[in-house]
Amino acid sequence: MTDYELMGAALEEAAKAAALGEVPVGAVVARRGEIIAAAHNTRETEKNALHHAELLAIDKACRALGGWRLWECELFVTLEPCPMCSGAILNSRIRRVVYGAADAKAGCCGSVTDLFALPFNHHPAVEQGLRAEEAQALLQEFFARLRAQRASRPKWKPPVR
Amino acid sequence: MTDYELMGAALEEAAKAAALGEVPVGAVVARRGEIIAAAHNTRETEKNALHHAELLAIDKACRALGGWRLWECELFVTLEPCPMCSGAILNSRIRRVVYGAADAKAGCCGSVTDLFALPFNHHPAVEQGLRAEEAQALLQEFFARLRAQRASRPKWKPPVR
Repeated sequence: MTDYELMGAALEEAAKAAALGEVPVGAVVARRGEIIAAAHNTRETEKNALHHAELLAIDKACRALGGWRLWECELFVTLEPCPMCSGAILNSRIRRVVYGAADAKAGCCGSVTDLFALPFNHHPAVEQGLRAEEAQALLQEFFARLRAQRASRPKWKPPVR
Repeated sequence: MTDYELMGAALEEAAKAAALGEVPVGAVVARRGEIIAAAHNTRETEKNALHHAELLAIDKACRALGGWRLWECELFVTLEPCPMCSGAILNSRIRRVVYGAADAKAGCCGSVTDLFALPFNHHPAVEQGLRAEEAQALLQEFFARLRAQRASRPKWKPPVR
């Protein structure tokens, strides 16, 4: 599969999150163009602060490959990784990260900070902006729907990513 | 339980990791002085890059309390949290972090960087150095034993945290 197709698989995962009422973020871990693991954000559904798409995908990939060093693997994710997920990328030695939309509030590949530029013991390659418009459109639709729901149900609290 | 006792529980977890041949790091999540979750590093045993003590303890705490916002909880950990675990602390809204030994190579509460000083949407209180000598002694014993094993078994590769 091409990078474009792999990001397409991550976008499909993000759409699954949206269907659950979760902030739509999806991720896949791939090795030599083949999907090893795919996951989407389930923080609200599973009531777990760790259930970001990237962390779940890395967890699945470690289980699938039977090791913690994912040095042959690449991560495709629709939104710029947060501190936790950027740290998980470092810990799992993922060689390359491709993300779609930037995250001005929590992104750690350059937006709030760039964790990969610090002197840790691993430095993945990073590419940004692949199919970013589609990732952004999913997020915008989701938050527009939330605002509409909030207007009709004043006591409902939106999920905070 | 007092802070001293809670760190003692984290040190007991670290000793469990050492007994498994894992880098000895332990963590507990507590609420109002009561232990909600305890865990130790099992990265090598479970072959999973995410299996740091703090991440496992936060995961258990979310499951135990049935929610992702651990805003009443405190984390006690024997070693300064890495980027991933510091990010998990932010994502789970843990109110206070107490750690023992500093980690010059990966610590994100001031050693390599201070993630909690950046403009993310949560800022936990942090205290360092509680029972640091005991945490450091466990680490030093572990790495001394590793070096001795390596000398007698030249092909053995030590785990890298």
